[in-house]
Amino acid sequence: MKFTKMHGCGNDYVYVNCMEKMIEDPAKVSKFVSDRHFGVGSDGLILICPSTQADFRMAMYNADGSEGEMCGNGIRCVAKYVYDYGLTDKTSISVETKGGMKYLDLTVEEGKVRMVKVNMGSPILNPAQIPILSEKEQFIDEPVEVDGVVYRMTGVSMGNPHVVIFVDDTSSLDLEKIGPSFENHKLFPKRINTEFVQVLNDHEINMRVWERGSGETLACGTGTCASAVACVLNGKTKEHLTVHLLGGDLEIFYDRANDTVWMTGPASVVYDGELSEESMEMIK
Amino acid sequence: MKFTKMHGCGNDYVYVNCMEKMIEDPAKVSKFVSDRHFGVGSDGLILICPSTQADFRMAMYNADGSEGEMCGNGIRCVAKYVYDYGLTDKTSISVETKGGMKYLDLTVEEGKVRMVKVNMGSPILNPAQIPILSEKEQFIDEPVEVDGVVYRMTGVSMGNPHVVIFVDDTSSLDLEKIGPSFENHKLFPKRINTEFVQVLNDHEINMRVWERGSGETLACGTGTCASAVACVLNGKTKEHLTVHLLGGDLEIFYDRANDTVWMTGPASVVYDGELSEESMEMIK
Repeated sequence: MKFTKMHGCGNDYVYVNCMEKMIEDPAKVSKFVSDRHFGVGSDGLILICPSTQADFRMAMYNADGSEGEMCGNGIRCVAKYVYDYGLTDKTSISVETKGGMKYLDLTVEEGKVRMVKVNMGSPILNPAQIPILSEKEQFIDEPVEVDGVVYRMTGVSMGNPHVVIFVDDTSSLDLEKIGPSFENHKLFPKRINTEFVQVLNDHEINMRVWERGSGETLACGTGTCASAVACVLNGKTKEHLTVHLLGGDLEIFYDRANDTVWMTGPASVVYDGELSEESMEMIK
Repeated sequence: MKFTKMHGCGNDYVYVNCMEKMIEDPAKVSKFVSDRHFGVGSDGLILICPSTQADFRMAMYNADGSEGEMCGNGIRCVAKYVYDYGLTDKTSISVETKGGMKYLDLTVEEGKVRMVKVNMGSPILNPAQIPILSEKEQFIDEPVEVDGVVYRMTGVSMGNPHVVIFVDDTSSLDLEKIGPSFENHKLFPKRINTEFVQVLNDHEINMRVWERGSGETLACGTGTCASAVACVLNGKTKEHLTVHLLGGDLEIFYDRANDTVWMTGPASVVYDGELSEESMEMIK
């Protein structure tokens, strides 16, 4: 099995071109390749497939073999892959995902995709839909007690649930210690992704994220969008902002007039690979 | 740059064939490729080079770019590489390392190396040479207080320093908590690798290891040898034993009559890869 290792802000997947032929048992393949000592090492597996409704279809699997819906960092890599490897010469493409249809604009330099802009859709602010257990119409700047400390939270769904918290300094946080208490708080029936945001000025923030089921990660595309939305709703920044993550920077534009979030960021090819016969035996 | 990803009991390195041409700045390459999100992902880089004294020379670099001396799991993979990729048809080879000359015997099945036996040399038991701060001639079953608890330790160098401790159950140990206190104990001027050993019977043990500078790892070849030596010296097992590690099993024979330790274990090729142009820019 040939594959390509790519990452967007350090969020890394094994990408397989399935335009001609689908692989068998992708859940098993994802578990094998994701292992960082015995396999290839990745956050999961992303398959690039044909689509009847879009230019391409992206199927994603997490490291535990479960199927994911959408990944903001992953879909930028899909865009880079299909252009750089000659599957398309278009610089505006549509990609079908389990999280809905996505539209992407590619910035090409010297024949290679450098940056990708993704229409991330509309934020959902209604607590019942996020879901957050609250009678309010929106959940903005609400006080919530976690482990005896009161935090002010803003709830945003970008297809998956987030709460955003403003802090003075993201670098000093002990997320390993506090993260699980947010994730499993009784207010969140489907658990929650938590973004910790430090506002630097009206167009720049630092962000760290505790992802449900994964712990702290280097970057989270939907979390970055949720943070930008929370910044605008709380009057902390303008609609265009740069988000500094552990894994790199993303540019977000929360176009409030059109209720749409745009994410622009990099995508990188690290190497091409081909599994050994021994490895193929493991995934048979 | 073409490479091969291999592992021995989960101890994984990026292997590069440098028989024709040495790579430039291996320290920089090792730091880049070792990163598990932005690079290839490995415990380091191992170069397979020509030698004037042996069949091959192995140069190894840790993930931080520092040069290593020897790696018991790595050298088995070197043996598999040179045979499976046709650099030799011999099944007994010599490999020059910074930790001295090593001799290996290859078990071949269906044209591929399955197991490799390595002569790991003689254990060093003199505390001054390990080094451990002690006036004794050997450091066997000595009581040492660590964080208020008295442990009985046996000190063994296999070219690098180890202490071995016998415990009732390796699975319940909180190594993240206790490991650093052993590593940095005042008795060990060059710090220490600590093996926690549960004796199952006279030819079988469970072992977990806290490696200096790395924390808990899936396997440690020299630590496995040190544990076997300590088992024999303390009358816990016979000279032939199977060591169950988190990353797999190793067979050790401490031939006391000839003062030699033999390690036998597996080596696996996971995949072949080639760095992208982008990645090559990063290591220029």
